[in-house]
Amino acid sequence: MTETATARRSRITPEREAELYEAVLDLLREVGYDALTMDAVAARTRSSKATLYRQWGGKAELVAKAVRHNKPGSMLEGVDTGTLKGDLHALTRRSDDCEMEQNSALMRGLAMAMHANPDLLKAFREHLVEPEMVMFRAVLQRAIDRGEVRADNPAIDYVVHMMIGAFAARTLIDDQPPTQTFLLSYIDAVVLPALGVHTGRTSSAG
Amino acid sequence: MTETATARRSRITPEREAELYEAVLDLLREVGYDALTMDAVAARTRSSKATLYRQWGGKAELVAKAVRHNKPGSMLEGVDTGTLKGDLHALTRRSDDCEMEQNSALMRGLAMAMHANPDLLKAFREHLVEPEMVMFRAVLQRAIDRGEVRADNPAIDYVVHMMIGAFAARTLIDDQPPTQTFLLSYIDAVVLPALGVHTGRTSSAG
Repeated sequence: MTETATARRSRITPEREAELYEAVLDLLREVGYDALTMDAVAARTRSSKATLYRQWGGKAELVAKAVRHNKPGSMLEGVDTGTLKGDLHALTRRSDDCEMEQNSALMRGLAMAMHANPDLLKAFREHLVEPEMVMFRAVLQRAIDRGEVRADNPAIDYVVHMMIGAFAARTLIDDQPPTQTFLLSYIDAVVLPALGVHTGRTSSAG
Repeated sequence: MTETATARRSRITPEREAELYEAVLDLLREVGYDALTMDAVAARTRSSKATLYRQWGGKAELVAKAVRHNKPGSMLEGVDTGTLKGDLHALTRRSDDCEMEQNSALMRGLAMAMHANPDLLKAFREHLVEPEMVMFRAVLQRAIDRGEVRADNPAIDYVVHMMIGAFAARTLIDDQPPTQTFLLSYIDAVVLPALGVHTGRTSSAG
């Protein structure tokens, strides 16, 4: 059982592991993947580089694990308001502006690296994009079941593009981070009308 | 006039300058801003690093100039089909899939750097984002003038978010580059309905 003994000797506690992943995600947001060094991770977490390499093998593995460890900000659990507008607003309100800015920074920090590193792209998709897609699909299915949205509305396939796209484009276009206020207004102006859900508008009739 | 003489001595031809900027943009697409080195630019363009530093001062200035030099892929000139759908489709068709993938790669390559470098962000916004916004605004204004879109439709403010967002989200969500086919289908399913423009759909009635 020499192997087990070695594994145990080099193993760190789950709390310490979580702390390390948080530090890696913070560094990714601050400097991005390319500029993130194992030296910086070691310094930030007061660990030795030898430990980091022994435990994770290298930067790509460590970053992919940290992304996998990141919990999606908004979960569906407990959200069921009875209307699509209510559900989409409730989901948006579950991430505060600080979390949104953090996710936006993480997306920027990983954008380039994901395309060079299939493992990282897989981790990002599985742990950050797909939970969002599952959530939006569930909310839409309820709206279809209630008769709010037609099952053959072609915009159904693009709800995640609309939402993640607005999120990503906000910083580029307006030089401002995505906020709850922006996303709620975008949902009412774009997402619901595209899905054929007509909500009362406060703008004056033309 | 010693200064002018010095400036002239170090000046490169406009053709050579264009060639250098193209090489810088190619490198940005391939490796991203952080991993782009002046050594790599020198090697790729067969120039000396001394020349590059003398001419541009440093990497940030060189990259910002290269971005400024990049021509927007789609210009409004010559596009006026008489319908919003026709205009948006025509604009989309002016960039082929290769150009779209190049712009997508450039966006990824600059995403992180822009937030650390205000000059680069300014260059990116002024030379890549704003021409797109001006173009979409002109096309929308025509649609409003024709009575196709109501002037108070709240989606008008989000047309660029919808378009650039879908462009950026495509790779993240579907692991595929944005293509003409994808964007044309997204325009019909999302952009036009959000703007209250109802075009005939081929999907079966539910």
